[in-house]
Amino acid sequence: MEENREDILKEIIDHGSADEFRQFYESMEPIDFAQLITDYSEEELDQVTTLMDDDDLATLTEEADDDLRIRIAHTLDNKRLLIAFGYMQKDDIVDMLGDFPEGRRKEVINLMKSGDRKIITDLLKYPEESAGGIMTTAYMALRQDLSIGQALDKIRQIGPKTEVIETLYVVNDSRQLVGSVDLKILLSTSRTQSISTIMESSVISVEPEEDQEQVARLVSRYDLNAIPVVSKKKVILGIITVDDVIDVIIQESDEDMLQMGGVSREESLDTTLGESVRMRLPWLLINLATAFLASFTVDLFSDTISKVVALSAIMTIVSGMGGNAGTQTVSILVRRLAQGELSWDDCKKPFLKEIALGLIDGAACGAVTAAIVWPFYGNFYLGLIVFLAMIGNLLVSSVCGFLIPVTIKKLHWDPAIASTIFLTTATDVLGFFIFLGLATLFMPYLLA
Amino acid sequence: MEENREDILKEIIDHGSADEFRQFYESMEPIDFAQLITDYSEEELDQVTTLMDDDDLATLTEEADDDLRIRIAHTLDNKRLLIAFGYMQKDDIVDMLGDFPEGRRKEVINLMKSGDRKIITDLLKYPEESAGGIMTTAYMALRQDLSIGQALDKIRQIGPKTEVIETLYVVNDSRQLVGSVDLKILLSTSRTQSISTIMESSVISVEPEEDQEQVARLVSRYDLNAIPVVSKKKVILGIITVDDVIDVIIQESDEDMLQMGGVSREESLDTTLGESVRMRLPWLLINLATAFLASFTVDLFSDTISKVVALSAIMTIVSGMGGNAGTQTVSILVRRLAQGELSWDDCKKPFLKEIALGLIDGAACGAVTAAIVWPFYGNFYLGLIVFLAMIGNLLVSSVCGFLIPVTIKKLHWDPAIASTIFLTTATDVLGFFIFLGLATLFMPYLLA
Repeated sequence: MEENREDILKEIIDHGSADEFRQFYESMEPIDFAQLITDYSEEELDQVTTLMDDDDLATLTEEADDDLRIRIAHTLDNKRLLIAFGYMQKDDIVDMLGDFPEGRRKEVINLMKSGDRKIITDLLKYPEESAGGIMTTAYMALRQDLSIGQALDKIRQIGPKTEVIETLYVVNDSRQLVGSVDLKILLSTSRTQSISTIMESSVISVEPEEDQEQVARLVSRYDLNAIPVVSKKKVILGIITVDDVIDVIIQESDEDMLQMGGVSREESLDTTLGESVRMRLPWLLINLATAFLASFTVDLFSDTISKVVALSAIMTIVSGMGGNAGTQTVSILVRRLAQGELSWDDCKKPFLKEIALGLIDGAACGAVTAAIVWPFYGNFYLGLIVFLAMIGNLLVSSVCGFLIPVTIKKLHWDPAIASTIFLTTATDVLGFFIFLGLATLFMPYLLA
Repeated sequence: MEENREDILKEIIDHGSADEFRQFYESMEPIDFAQLITDYSEEELDQVTTLMDDDDLATLTEEADDDLRIRIAHTLDNKRLLIAFGYMQKDDIVDMLGDFPEGRRKEVINLMKSGDRKIITDLLKYPEESAGGIMTTAYMALRQDLSIGQALDKIRQIGPKTEVIETLYVVNDSRQLVGSVDLKILLSTSRTQSISTIMESSVISVEPEEDQEQVARLVSRYDLNAIPVVSKKKVILGIITVDDVIDVIIQESDEDMLQMGGVSREESLDTTLGESVRMRLPWLLINLATAFLASFTVDLFSDTISKVVALSAIMTIVSGMGGNAGTQTVSILVRRLAQGELSWDDCKKPFLKEIALGLIDGAACGAVTAAIVWPFYGNFYLGLIVFLAMIGNLLVSSVCGFLIPVTIKKLHWDPAIASTIFLTTATDVLGFFIFLGLATLFMPYLLA
């Protein structure tokens, strides 16, 4: 099916008319078409955009990913680009311009009509990952003194140009947000009543500087289909629609997961080799520094190890298990902290639980390990110290696995990035130290 | 603020009237109220539900999390519960009944009106994480032969009882889905035209057995605000709204992240100690088994280590770095595979890139390590073998970090769960083996 479509498209591009092309384009979703041409050369893209009418070009540009979008824009002269912009939502235009080289961005903005130019330059001021950066200006605001009938007429008239009408926002004469109306209720109310009689006056809104993660949290918590963005003076500036919120949620959770794994948030399977080296190697070198810390800890005990070589095999079990148990605790906390900060009060009970968990899991794993080590090496005391060291290190891993992410969050860093590195440093260094330290103390019994 | 609210609520519960209570409840969002009473005892919950009117009780129950919802239901007799159900969406009722003990579920269902009972028992048949399990039956379907005017009248009449009206679904006489209409377009079209003239006839839909993850992928890819669920014969059964899709996305990404960290998908900060032990310990014991594998590998070389004790300190660097580099590769693949399977064809280029990356990062980390180990221990050959072993182990980590998740996905398991355990087994065992093996080969030079 996909293969076929690719061939048909190539055929149309080489020999077809604009009409045939339009028919093909409209037989599928724009995003699926975008995927079809994602690997096209600049020349092929040029052929595609030449065949497309302006409306279709606009939908394609809205749905294409950043990379393809820029490459499409590259095939268009400024005049055509501005025509396509005429069909696009302002927030998509801003997204696109944000990725343009500075020179062309200025050029295009200067060619815009002054009204559009003002909106676009205002939107461009907000950081890309803020509420202002993801909001759209294509919302509908109804004045509170309208009657339901007047409101309906306005919806008929400008509804098709807005993104969401399920919830309508109500403003006063100074465009300050004073309420919201559910369209379902509006439709089933008599035309003569005033908007203000059916509006809900407490509306959840955000300011444009708000981080997009917080926006996503509000939308998902309160099951909103859009959230209005208002200035400090409560003047409505735009709305953020739920489809953009979904993109934020996916992006942020992908980022957390990649960062936990020690990979940059921007990396994907398609990242070039050079880029991947540049992004991953620094992280590995930081890990290397902490690995040396652990290694020096072992080196401190080289005398002990030289007397009982078996220690060098067993110590890796203790340190490794600390890392595993600690990662469990870290994972739970990073997930929880992604939903918002924890107060110290919230922490008390779960923290004590993690400590108890460290003791119990440590005793269980320690007992199993001891039960194997003792007969294998024929030394009871070797089993005993591995048992004690395992409890000690799983206790360390519980405490650190809990406190490290919470502390990092308090410092307003991202726990997903840095938690694991501090954790494994702690569990490796202390794991080796506890086990080899105990072995040094018990040395007379180990040699017996 | 929160503190105050808590005190006010306690005061109202102890001394207030139903009116005061309603005023308090309606001053906030139901989900915020739910959070306020989340730690209440059964007795306190009983006081709360006694003060609430049925409508408010229904909104509270819809917004409460599973645990609170069941505890609330426990304070209600069957009669009151059925009254509350009258105000609730069918999918929320089904969610709730799913968590009931079997006895009470049957009891309640038998007390329902036969129409409701049929809908509820039908919905209960779908797995909780399938499209059928999360769909709602409160959708609006318009017959295709209606005029726009008739459609609008129907929307006025039953709109308030449905969940989404931004998109309306169009059906034929056999209730088969034949198209969809954007409400914005419907509102701005003349009343006399027929629905079928403005409807979009290609509608993205899912069957009820579809996994909820796939539903979420479609909704986010095509920016839908709802997706219809249809039977094999295209008869519309329900719709899934975007707010439920957001919950799915958050739930699934949380699950992936927790599972990568070796924690069960159901665990959270509030899980009891006993539950946590039961969920985490088995995972730790599996890890322990693989740690023993690594430990036995080291033990094989105890002769070598006894001759050069420094090896026991350095070997931990090599194995640890393999684990770190491999986790980077695994993280990227698990994220990518969450979006769908990779064909072997898609894999070729990125796989070769990962191998090159392993070589480059291995050489870089190996060189740094050698530059420290050589002068520290005053032995050039020790530096040389750590350099070679690092390259070897980072190559192993690239290959395994790539192939393990891809293979697990091919076997239709979840790569998020099992990848890390296989990876660290490989990097530990082979890391130790390569390094200590090289050391054994180079022994004469190490002793010199």
